[in-house]
Amino acid sequence: MDKSGYDPERFRRQGHALVDQLADYLERATTRAPMPVLPWAEPAARLLDWPSDFSAEPSGSLPELMARVLEQSNHLHHPRYVGHQVTAPLPMAALCELAAALLNNGMAVYEMGPVSTAMERNVIAWLGGQLGFPPGCDGVLTSGGSAGNLTGLLAARQTKAGFDAWNEGAHGGPPLAVLASAETHYCVKRAVQVMGWGAGGVQTVPVDAQFRLRPEALPDALAAAARAGRKVIGVVASAGSTSTGAFDPFEPIADFCAAHDLWLHVDGAHGASAVLSPRYKPTLRGIERADSVAWDMHKMMMMPALVTAVLFRDGKHSYAALAQEAAYLFNTDEPWSDSAKRTLECTKRMMSLKVYAGLKLCGTRLFAEYIDYTFDLARRFAARLTAADDFELAIEPDCNIVCFRYAPPGTAASDELQRRVRRRVVESGAFYLVQTTLPRGVYLRVTLINPLTTDADLDALLDAVRAAAAD
Amino acid sequence: MDKSGYDPERFRRQGHALVDQLADYLERATTRAPMPVLPWAEPAARLLDWPSDFSAEPSGSLPELMARVLEQSNHLHHPRYVGHQVTAPLPMAALCELAAALLNNGMAVYEMGPVSTAMERNVIAWLGGQLGFPPGCDGVLTSGGSAGNLTGLLAARQTKAGFDAWNEGAHGGPPLAVLASAETHYCVKRAVQVMGWGAGGVQTVPVDAQFRLRPEALPDALAAAARAGRKVIGVVASAGSTSTGAFDPFEPIADFCAAHDLWLHVDGAHGASAVLSPRYKPTLRGIERADSVAWDMHKMMMMPALVTAVLFRDGKHSYAALAQEAAYLFNTDEPWSDSAKRTLECTKRMMSLKVYAGLKLCGTRLFAEYIDYTFDLARRFAARLTAADDFELAIEPDCNIVCFRYAPPGTAASDELQRRVRRRVVESGAFYLVQTTLPRGVYLRVTLINPLTTDADLDALLDAVRAAAAD
Repeated sequence: MDKSGYDPERFRRQGHALVDQLADYLERATTRAPMPVLPWAEPAARLLDWPSDFSAEPSGSLPELMARVLEQSNHLHHPRYVGHQVTAPLPMAALCELAAALLNNGMAVYEMGPVSTAMERNVIAWLGGQLGFPPGCDGVLTSGGSAGNLTGLLAARQTKAGFDAWNEGAHGGPPLAVLASAETHYCVKRAVQVMGWGAGGVQTVPVDAQFRLRPEALPDALAAAARAGRKVIGVVASAGSTSTGAFDPFEPIADFCAAHDLWLHVDGAHGASAVLSPRYKPTLRGIERADSVAWDMHKMMMMPALVTAVLFRDGKHSYAALAQEAAYLFNTDEPWSDSAKRTLECTKRMMSLKVYAGLKLCGTRLFAEYIDYTFDLARRFAARLTAADDFELAIEPDCNIVCFRYAPPGTAASDELQRRVRRRVVESGAFYLVQTTLPRGVYLRVTLINPLTTDADLDALLDAVRAAAAD
Repeated sequence: MDKSGYDPERFRRQGHALVDQLADYLERATTRAPMPVLPWAEPAARLLDWPSDFSAEPSGSLPELMARVLEQSNHLHHPRYVGHQVTAPLPMAALCELAAALLNNGMAVYEMGPVSTAMERNVIAWLGGQLGFPPGCDGVLTSGGSAGNLTGLLAARQTKAGFDAWNEGAHGGPPLAVLASAETHYCVKRAVQVMGWGAGGVQTVPVDAQFRLRPEALPDALAAAARAGRKVIGVVASAGSTSTGAFDPFEPIADFCAAHDLWLHVDGAHGASAVLSPRYKPTLRGIERADSVAWDMHKMMMMPALVTAVLFRDGKHSYAALAQEAAYLFNTDEPWSDSAKRTLECTKRMMSLKVYAGLKLCGTRLFAEYIDYTFDLARRFAARLTAADDFELAIEPDCNIVCFRYAPPGTAASDELQRRVRRRVVESGAFYLVQTTLPRGVYLRVTLINPLTTDADLDALLDAVRAAAAD
């Protein structure tokens, strides 16, 4: 076979060319050069740009292909990217991903990834400490928040079901349920349905006007689940919720869980990072009482996706999620060292490398400052929306997600208007923002997650919305 | 906050330095320069090399940190890496990962990853065609074989359970089961237990002397599951199995499934890539009749982990796995374009980029040649083991996994001897190989997955085993 693909000098040439290409791209994206945030094209049209007309022989070049990829992608480093909760990653962390991809140390067992295994264990201990967990805490890194929440809930099932759910299966006991608000990310209900609990596996708890779970409604939810023949094993609380980024009140929820012997799982995919900020940590008071927390570092820690920590206050629960014997494979002397025992993945990426390098080389203060900058920016933006007579703020933001409507005086803030202005603004390439549906209707929604976004950008966003509506 | 981490010129400098560092590493690793394949250290010792002593201020440098990472990792590009089924990735594919990590297009919805979504759809169609699936086939890319097998089995559950398992939950019907051989990868049983089927959710089917599922034993397994009160919904077949890489006989298994209205899922994580080789494709005859196939491209397609395709012969089953409404989020006109509806991930990495670039820029013949080279190498190695009077071959290899024992004439090929020689060889750094337990005891096990490995390397491996035993 042709082995020239492994030629180090070819890699060197291609690598230097790509680094220049990406640096030039970063330069354009970060300096507001005339480029669309998202170069809009309908899915069916974009499909035609990338035909699978692969031939037996090589064709095309990496720089040519990359130029088109860079052009057509959503440009998260553009300061006017204010869309979903995916960060503009630190370029240094992306370089760590290059090394991780080349080394490809798979980590299912210690020998397949000695460095990333050691880094993971130490990063996990550090993260647990930041949450306020005691020294016996433990956990793993996994491929995204959905996997993280499923892992936490598997441990909850095994610990609180009252029977050996792993080995006996669902039929070994009554149908199970967790309590959670309707604002919870859809992956929680999905996890429950993957586990075979059905649509009734999440008993909804009402929220308050701030979209935070109402702890005083928990007893009724518990009773309702019991009436439906369900054994409730825990509560899932959010930091923050999907649509509005609301942080549930963990203290009273933890009190309820303690009183009823329930597991407390916190979906902190977006917001757990706020514990890194001395200023915003109090918003998460009580999270240290959770039994498990899922925490995405590709959201509010400037890391490329995917890297999610699942943290267990009591470290032994980290082994409960996948209570499986695999003696043929695993090291029994140092059980922590074979990570596949505790994660849904067998082969896993070296995802600890970027986190370790980020914390070490950038210093932890940067991550606190990132929280402060983006959360503060959201508060100022909310104040500006409140002050404007043609915009309505949905709620005061708990974090860096802001929902609002365009509602010029004398007109109805119709759902159709919000949809239309969003679509126009996005298709113009000037900004990338999203929308969500709240009880009062469709809202425009921004996540201020790119640290290069400024107040002036957000002023310009409001003007762009006005112009799109007028058009 | 300090935003210098986003400075394009800093990225350019760091990037060029890292490319040189990685190219130098590749040069050393691929040319058999004096470096250990795996620089052995006990887990507890390695832990001390990477303390989480993060301080508020930046400390250390990327080149210094990377030098230590490169030194201490398992060196998969070393021609004497013959360990687990994780490939020495094409360096160009690792460069794609750099671009993917920097762009960080999350893909849950089309707008968050227009290029990677388009590439994924076209790559999936191409892969399905290679399997022999009809044009209506479909599927997704997901984060690893465990996720891929779980996704396939979720679709099987929803399609064949006879009740709406997604919404009614496990209690909506009888306990379920699949039939699979004991040689099946542990993640299949894990997936079943995640879904709440319990330990009885896999009914074991005996294997033949080649460790292939015995299709004539399927009726008994079906009857045994029925006696245990289980409704069998499908069969999981392997291409290849975990320990020995055996390919199950898909044709008679597909006949059985057709006769009993069962789902056929093929765990092709390791071996599905063999369809790309005209020479070895016949080994997989019948795979085109599977309902779903999981196929890791980080095993036998030279891609960095993780990238797994889950392919459904009937494309509509791709929507059955996670039969969930999420209207607030998803595009209903072009349902394929919002990938989170069909994968366990919400945010997902741009994993199609490396596959698309590989097939396009390297040409598809390279992937056929890779299969031929590694499978042929395994056959020659097996012949050499058979010819040697001091080694025992476990079975003739179906693919590029070979299991064998050191058994010098006049001595017992004890399990302890195999363990000891493996440990000595690995700790010496000369080779990285693994071990497995077969019915007759502990065997040495190699996966010939690095295309730079030669016959001479394998001769040297046998000498290294002999020397380790004599020592």
